Amino acid sequence: MRLSKFLLHTTKDITSEAKLVSHQLMLKSGMIKQISSGVYCWLPLGVKILDKIKCVIKQQLDDIGSQEIILPSLQPLSIWEKSGRAKEESDLKSQIFHLTDKKQNKYVLPPSGEEAATDLFNSSVQSYKNVSNILYQITWKFRDEIRPRHGVMRAKEFLMKDAYSFDINKEGALLSYEKILATYLKIFKKLELEVIPVLAPTGAMGGNYSHEFHVLAQNGESKIYYQNELLEYLKGDNFSLKEYEKFYAKEEEKHVSENISSLNILQSKSIEVGHLFYLGQKYSKDLNCTYQDKDGSFKFPEMGSYGIGITRLIAAIIENSNDENGIIWPDSISPFKLAIINIKVENNECTELSEKIYDKLSVKYDVLYDDVHSSPGKKFADIDLIGISWQIIIGPKHAKNNSVELKNRKTGATKILKEEELYNFINDI
Amino acid sequence: MRLSKFLLHTTKDITSEAKLVSHQLMLKSGMIKQISSGVYCWLPLGVKILDKIKCVIKQQLDDIGSQEIILPSLQPLSIWEKSGRAKEESDLKSQIFHLTDKKQNKYVLPPSGEEAATDLFNSSVQSYKNVSNILYQITWKFRDEIRPRHGVMRAKEFLMKDAYSFDINKEGALLSYEKILATYLKIFKKLELEVIPVLAPTGAMGGNYSHEFHVLAQNGESKIYYQNELLEYLKGDNFSLKEYEKFYAKEEEKHVSENISSLNILQSKSIEVGHLFYLGQKYSKDLNCTYQDKDGSFKFPEMGSYGIGITRLIAAIIENSNDENGIIWPDSISPFKLAIINIKVENNECTELSEKIYDKLSVKYDVLYDDVHSSPGKKFADIDLIGISWQIIIGPKHAKNNSVELKNRKTGATKILKEEELYNFINDI
Repeated sequence: MRLSKFLLHTTKDITSEAKLVSHQLMLKSGMIKQISSGVYCWLPLGVKILDKIKCVIKQQLDDIGSQEIILPSLQPLSIWEKSGRAKEESDLKSQIFHLTDKKQNKYVLPPSGEEAATDLFNSSVQSYKNVSNILYQITWKFRDEIRPRHGVMRAKEFLMKDAYSFDINKEGALLSYEKILATYLKIFKKLELEVIPVLAPTGAMGGNYSHEFHVLAQNGESKIYYQNELLEYLKGDNFSLKEYEKFYAKEEEKHVSENISSLNILQSKSIEVGHLFYLGQKYSKDLNCTYQDKDGSFKFPEMGSYGIGITRLIAAIIENSNDENGIIWPDSISPFKLAIINIKVENNECTELSEKIYDKLSVKYDVLYDDVHSSPGKKFADIDLIGISWQIIIGPKHAKNNSVELKNRKTGATKILKEEELYNFINDI
Repeated sequence: MRLSKFLLHTTKDITSEAKLVSHQLMLKSGMIKQISSGVYCWLPLGVKILDKIKCVIKQQLDDIGSQEIILPSLQPLSIWEKSGRAKEESDLKSQIFHLTDKKQNKYVLPPSGEEAATDLFNSSVQSYKNVSNILYQITWKFRDEIRPRHGVMRAKEFLMKDAYSFDINKEGALLSYEKILATYLKIFKKLELEVIPVLAPTGAMGGNYSHEFHVLAQNGESKIYYQNELLEYLKGDNFSLKEYEKFYAKEEEKHVSENISSLNILQSKSIEVGHLFYLGQKYSKDLNCTYQDKDGSFKFPEMGSYGIGITRLIAAIIENSNDENGIIWPDSISPFKLAIINIKVENNECTELSEKIYDKLSVKYDVLYDDVHSSPGKKFADIDLIGISWQIIIGPKHAKNNSVELKNRKTGATKILKEEELYNFINDI
């Protein structure tokens, strides 16, 4: 992609309401633009990040045989009345957007899809043989947030991956739960995040076993307490709930400091980015979702639900990975794999070499090529700000020798490479 | 993908309200499931089709340098008041979903995004140098349809690709318009559809030049009149508006039969699947969207807007490509490239050969492997119904000789191939 053809709108002129560095950097880099309080448009740069992160999540979910569905945004209020989540006494009630059509049919804009997923499952699966399933969707969700803040961190419309597991018994459901928990750890590893799952209250969701996933982050709104050894354990490749439960990990309100002084507990600010719920038969019973068992009898499946707030996760990644010059994306979701910066477009040698390298690399990789007339200072600042992992800098001095400067955004390290050396190096990263 | 792990729910038990064959087949094949009148959930099979068709559309739009954005579903009523599209006198008014949050902020769930796109553009582009842009999004849209019908053909929530062009003058805007029209022809060619663009009224959209894209379809709700020679012209690779305008092509209400008796006009039922509008400066003026020109003065960009109803398009494709056994997908959006049907799972030779071929092909292609215990009749019926382009049928008779039967869904033609011949054949299609 040539920068001259790419709608990149970096700016220093941002709202003073943006207190969090992630909010500031998403606005400065031109990923998002607020259209009203807590509601955002996504510019091409932001869409590229969303696509990359969706791709990481989908791949891991596909690997465990999870299947993608799409539930609508217009959900009949009737199914929400069945689950009780739209009732006065529900914690969620005040956060749900309601609307009515011309014929006075009532709808809910959903913050999550337990009811609709259960309803869909009921009509699509009949036999005990086919019950075991994990279904997921990646769709925009809605919450009537009274005080939206921190950009996409707490917004009225947000992108969420929500998954629903169905099993014939509690053992199966807990195995699905464990499988998703292990998959989440893999996803967050790919995103180079340190996360801690902590035991959580189930609240409005129902069910009786739940974990939140917290990213360790200095500016987080939450606070968690955990054993350092747990962080080490989670870095390993084999996760089991049984092993995990030997460690201490609690959110602030569930932490009891006096009893655990001997456990060497760390505390950290954190951002919640994911949530797992073992739901039991709550929703299958509420929505009368059954399957036929071996003996011909009708039974309720055991369910779980599992969310990752994708737009909020992007903010959490930025909170954790930035410097004074801007965002530093993990390689797995860098909006472009490479940036080529032609620092002197009017110099023939620079432009010839830049064009040649762009032609060669853009066949194989996602490349942003800065081919516009502007000052080197502005070019460096913009590419640092938007956080592309690798920068190929082409200036008159080295272009003469058919060489370029390669810079790593994360470490800041640079080296001079001949054109052929560059291709070899890129092939290996 | 193994069928034993894939949530495929084919059924004969569908609502008698489904009159159109596309509606019937989408329900029977288990692509969609209605959750309330005019609102659908998409099952894994349906999501695969949606992904394929999105991919075809994105590729063509990327080829002309169009860039993806995402506009929110919660759009402030204020921008709709500026354009007048939510006002009492607007044609669109009665079809717009309105909602209000706890703080009494008012929102619209949008059927299209002219206002939000214009607002986004205004804040992202300042200079005449950067005006020329085509921005698109593929998002779910909403319409308060008083009489939803024919499945996803006329639904309350639908997936639409909407694009917006911005140019510094009318000539530029009409070039963008022409470029998109030519791109639409390419998209529909990939989808193996015969389409006719017809001059259309601009209605609620504003602007003064508009075309609708109609797919020729026996069960269509529209009727168009066109010269046969136009259909031939559109099959060519070079499209120009000037050449196109030499031909006759009108929708029923604009057709005047007496004047054109000499032109050899054909008539056909049709389904509208796309729409182009040259908007001029309507939205840029309404929303005060300006750029700074060379001389420092502020000017309004010239705009166009361009939609393709993706979910409706899927129905139109099925209307045009089916037989008594089910759907026949064009190769470009077949949910899987290949199906492997193991017709006797309990036979060792069948299963060994099936597994071997599946292992080999699934590395490179998207394959659905029917590995479940059921009758050959049920297996053939289901794979024909869901319309996968190529079927590899593995039964005891041929498996003994390390051979398979390859069937083309469209032609019904079959041939017996040795395993190695099969790989060579598949490589070539």
